[in-house]
This record gives sequence, C-alpha cells and structure tokens, in this order.
Amino acid sequence: MKIAVLPGDGIGPEIVAEAVKVLEALDLKLEMETAPVGGAAYEVAGHPLPESTLGLAREADAILFGAVGDWKYDKLDRPLRPEQAILGLRKHLGLFANFRPAICYEQLTHASSLKPELVAGLDILIIRELTGDIYFGQPRGRRTAPDGHFPGAEEAFDTMRYSRPEIERIARVAFEAARKRSKRVTSVDKANVLETFQLWKDVVTEVHKDYPDVQLDHMYVDNAAMQLVKAPKAFDVIVTGNMFGDILSDEASMLTGSIGMLPSASLNDKKQGLYEPSHGSAPDIAGKGVANPLATILSAAMMLRFSLGQEEAARRIEAAVQKVLAQGLRTPDIHSEGTTRVGTVQMGDAVVNAL
Amino acid sequence: MKIAVLPGDGIGPEIVAEAVKVLEALDLKLEMETAPVGGAAYEVAGHPLPESTLGLAREADAILFGAVGDWKYDKLDRPLRPEQAILGLRKHLGLFANFRPAICYEQLTHASSLKPELVAGLDILIIRELTGDIYFGQPRGRRTAPDGHFPGAEEAFDTMRYSRPEIERIARVAFEAARKRSKRVTSVDKANVLETFQLWKDVVTEVHKDYPDVQLDHMYVDNAAMQLVKAPKAFDVIVTGNMFGDILSDEASMLTGSIGMLPSASLNDKKQGLYEPSHGSAPDIAGKGVANPLATILSAAMMLRFSLGQEEAARRIEAAVQKVLAQGLRTPDIHSEGTTRVGTVQMGDAVVNAL
Ligand SMILES: CC(C)[C@H](C(=O)O)[C@@H](O)C(=O)O
Ligand SMILES: CC(C)[C@H](C(=O)O)[C@@H](O)C(=O)O
Repeated sequence: MKIAVLPGDGIGPEIVAEAVKVLEALDLKLEMETAPVGGAAYEVAGHPLPESTLGLAREADAILFGAVGDWKYDKLDRPLRPEQAILGLRKHLGLFANFRPAICYEQLTHASSLKPELVAGLDILIIRELTGDIYFGQPRGRRTAPDGHFPGAEEAFDTMRYSRPEIERIARVAFEAARKRSKRVTSVDKANVLETFQLWKDVVTEVHKDYPDVQLDHMYVDNAAMQLVKAPKAFDVIVTGNMFGDILSDEASMLTGSIGMLPSASLNDKKQGLYEPSHGSAPDIAGKGVANPLATILSAAMMLRFSLGQEEAARRIEAAVQKVLAQGLRTPDIHSEGTTRVGTVQMGDAVVNAL
Repeated sequence: MKIAVLPGDGIGPEIVAEAVKVLEALDLKLEMETAPVGGAAYEVAGHPLPESTLGLAREADAILFGAVGDWKYDKLDRPLRPEQAILGLRKHLGLFANFRPAICYEQLTHASSLKPELVAGLDILIIRELTGDIYFGQPRGRRTAPDGHFPGAEEAFDTMRYSRPEIERIARVAFEAARKRSKRVTSVDKANVLETFQLWKDVVTEVHKDYPDVQLDHMYVDNAAMQLVKAPKAFDVIVTGNMFGDILSDEASMLTGSIGMLPSASLNDKKQGLYEPSHGSAPDIAGKGVANPLATILSAAMMLRFSLGQEEAARRIEAAVQKVLAQGLRTPDIHSEGTTRVGTVQMGDAVVNAL
C-alpha cells in the first residue's frame, strides 16, 4: 500500500508529520513517499504541481495532503499559484467525490458560534462533486462582450456545466453513503434559476428510484445556507455541486466551531483518494508548533478506511482521538478553561500513546 | 409619486396590506396602484409577470413587492413559475443594486441561532449585484456535451459573466454606501478559481482608488460563508456578485434570527426601485393572519428614502417599528416569553399608532 505524502505550505508540514507518526505507529505495511506541493513546490521546481509530484500521486493508492497557500504567492499568475496544485490533483486523478463531514465533538460543543443545543451531537456529511461545474467548465476567459448589458466592454466569463453521468455517479455516492447512516439525502440546487441545476435535480430524482429506502429532499442553495444556520441537525447527507459545495461545506464546518478537527476525503471511481484536513494552510501560525494535527490525523483514518481497506486501523485512530479529547488535551484553537493546552507534536504523541 | 403595489403569493397580500396602511397614514401624496404578480398573476393572466403588471412597474417611481411562490406551481415550466416575475422585474427595470441589511434588533438578539454576544448590535449591509452573473448570462441550455468528462452525454450549462462597467457601477454603489457607514467594504469573490471573479477583484481594486477614505478587503466566498458564522460583526459592507450574494445574504439574514424583520431594496441607475421583505412567501402560514409585516413595512421605509426622497417619513416609520418592539409586541416568528403575541393586522395597526 503506497501513500504519497504531500505536506504543502504553512502548517501543512507540521500537521502531516503528526499524521505520518500515527500511521507509522500502526504496524501496517505502508510505503510512504513525500513530495513537494503548492508554494513549496513552486519554490523548488517552479510549479505548484510538478510532474514528479503528480506522477507519485498517480501511482499511489492514496494521497495524504497537508494544505497549500500563502499570501506571498498572491501576486503570481493564476496557473502558478499554490491552489492550482489541489485543482490539478482533483482533475488529473478524477477525484470527483468529496466527503466533508461536519461533526460537533461532545467536548467541543461550547466552541461553536451557535447555541449549544443547536449543535450538540451534530453529524452532517456533505458530499460535494469535485471535478465538474464552473470550476473546470470550458470555455472561460476574458473577451470583448458580444452582447449583454454593455456589448463591446471588456468582460470575463466562466461556464457552469454538468453532464448526466457526472450527476448520476455523485448521486449514487450520496445515496450509498446515506444507506450507512440515517438514510436521508438533501440535494442542494438552484433549479429555479440555473439550467445546470435543473438537470441536476432531474437526474438526482431519477437515480433516487434505485434507492427507494433513502429519503430524498431538494433544497435551493440559498435556503440551505439559511437552514444550516437555523437548524443544522435537520440535515444528514447533503449532496451538491462543486461551487455550492465549496461554500456550504465551509459554512457547515465552521458551525461546529472546531474546523481544526474535521477531515476530508476526495475519491475517484477506483477508490484512490486524496485525504486532507478541512482547514487551510494558516500561514500566520506556521512553524509555531501550535497547529491542531487532529483533522489531518482523522484524514489519515479516512484514508485507511476508504482507500486502503483498513477499517480496523481507521477505528483505532478515531478511538485514540476521542481518548485524547477525553483526557482534556487541547491545541490552542480548541482550548478552553479546565483543559490542558498542548502543541502540535504533543498532540500527535498523545494520539500515538492512545492507540 | 407613483407606487406599484405587487402583493404576490402566500403571505404577500397580508403583509403588503399592512405596509400600505402605514404609507397611507403618513399624509404624503402617494398614488398607489395594485397589480397581480407571481402565481397570483399566473392564475388570472397565465403569466407570472403579465405585460400590464410590467407596464405599471415601469411607469412607477417605486414598486412595493410582497413575495412570490407556492409549491403548487412547482410543476409548471420554468418560464411560468412565480419566481420568474422577480427575475423579470430585475431584468426589465435594470435593478442592478440590491441592498440587503442584516440587522440584529436589540430586543430580538435571543432569537438568533448564534450566541448573543456574537450578534448583539449586528449591522451588516450586503450589496448584491442583481442583473448579471450566471443568473442572466447567455448562452445557457441543454445539449450534447461537446467535450469534458463525458463527451456525447446529455449536459446542461450556464454562463457566468461580468463586464467591467457592470462591476464598476456596483463597486461604486458599495463604496458610496460605506462612506455613510463605517467606511469598510469587503468584496467577496472566487478569484482563485473563476475568471469572472478575477476581473471582479481587479475592477473593484481599481474603483477603490477613487475612494481612498474607504477600507477595502477581499475575501473568497467560501471563507466569507465561514466568517459570517464565526464573527459576523467583523463585517460592515459586503459587496459581491449575484450568485454569491444570493447565498451570503440569506445566510447573513438568518444569523440575525429574525428574518421577518429584514427589508430589502433593488435599485436601478435612475433610483427607481423594488422594495420587498427578505423573507419568502411562506405558503404554509398564508391567510392565517400570523405573518410578520415588519420587514415589508421597513421595506416601505427604504422606498421612501431611496426612491421617493422622503427621508423624514422613512425615519418616522423606522422609529415607529422600534417603538412597537419596545412595547413588547411580537408576531409569532419573533415571540418569546414576556412579550405580547399579536397578529399581522394588529402589528400593522400598532405601527400606525406609533407613527
Ligand atoms: C483552494 C480552493 C481552490 C479550493 C476550492 O475552492 O475548491 C478550496 O477552497 C477547497 O474547498 O478545497
Ligand atoms: C426566487 C429567486 C429567483 C431569487 C434569487 O435567487 O435571486 C431569491 O432567492 C432572491 O434572493 O430574491
């Protein structure tokens, strides 16, 4: 079982190091190979996703990814910016199914912006389509407006697109996932305005016929953004497109108050996957040894489960994380009175000890 | 001063009636003419925005709009559905500047999902571009995919577009609005992925040179969705495109916990405007006399201010609303222990008495 380890920028290297430590403590036959990605790769190879890194990712069974991005790369041309690495990996590996759980851990409920009763026990799974939509749709660019409000003016444009098979496969992923949970799927669209999401709604409805045991609701994206704030626990599995999923999954993870705890997985049809924390590269705290490694450690657990067929090892990690929380260990982002403040490395060590 | 009164569907007629009552009590020379819109118009004229209604709207100085939509029209073809009326009015009247305040009233702070300290005193103004973006961009439709992941498959597509002058004018609206407030604008984009929003960011930055007294920040839409949950009071004026604005303005209004209190205005370059509550048509409570008319009454105040040049009358209405809240009157949506529950008509009467 081969793992491509791509630490990236900011806190990426620190948090990935802890996840690697945990994986190594498991006594599995894992071959791990590290490569630069994002700004770090730009520095050494002039490109955020060098051929060698992409090659390693392609041949690996799974990718353990830290985070990319730093303000210092803001001035680079778009194709050279760190986040192109993650877009490139998604595209080249066909990682169309993004799993973003938004879970509120019992001990961390108080950290949420929301009143505790609204988030206690929260457990939503957002399934975001990750290789289509306006993220990758061609054509796109700048041009002279051919029509519209100001014909002849400079304009920029992008194309939102979804084909029937693209929608079908992500809908199946969502219904299958719901079967292992409370059997409810909310499909989020904007069918009242967009052709793309009318097709989305139609196809999800058709695919649903194969899953009569799962309850399906449709909700407009603006309403979903509201209902997540109003009554997040009313959701179970949410499935949506790339753009809406970007926005709603971030909103949902922030609802928990502890985004430093949330893992994510991005899978292709061969169950090859990229695993990364839901949070970003946090350049402001990089190198200070205070970043929370738990989201990355939990991402490694998802990797064992989804791409490496090691369910038991995944559970061991998850149980160990629960244990360190119960022990009262907290990195600064989730610290509160009466708990013990620890750094990145100490937290990783504690998880290893709790295995 | 001519006002087109378009009550629409669901609770629309009830809440608009109260706003009309308040306007009539002001002793201004207002000519009000009512016309059907949305599902109500479809019933009588076979179209959600009949020519006669559009004609009335065109010649009026302002439009007082209730709400449109009902599940019973879900099966109609898209062009006949109620919400096409609002899209049609925006388009035909060129109502490009949408003002959506998200204000947390002191007496209603407890109604928010968020912890009181995070929302007490909240006062955000979201300025959403309303006639461009993927809402109206051509081409759009269904076709056989010419390329992409599944060439030859059925696909649907839409076009996101913004031209330089479209961005310039909404940026100016935002900077001007900020000058009357705390002089801070956050422009929300997705420049890291979309060509359209790279141009958006570039143009907003250029226009900003004319407003050196206003502070400008840029934020990605996914981050904005998170920061609104985490620390909404950090925002003052937010300016963004049509699609992101749809999502973020609804998220922000729900943060206040009292969307039944929030007005909105949609203006064109002649200050002609459409004024409507931020909430929807709520068909489930229509006709029960329990809907909160205050968002519509406050929309009438915005109408007096922005389109009719009646600042003093606007303030009178706003003060009257504050007064009824202080008196403890509450419709069911904002009711809490120790306050007096009233219906739609009683609330309207109370505002009239408080003028
Ligand atoms: C970095 C950016 C391109 C990316 C996205 O928009 O998908 C990020 O926000 C995410 O959600 O992984
Ligand atoms: C009804 C719908 C077309 C509309 C929109 O998406 O703009 C509504 O959500 C709004 O925000 O006014």
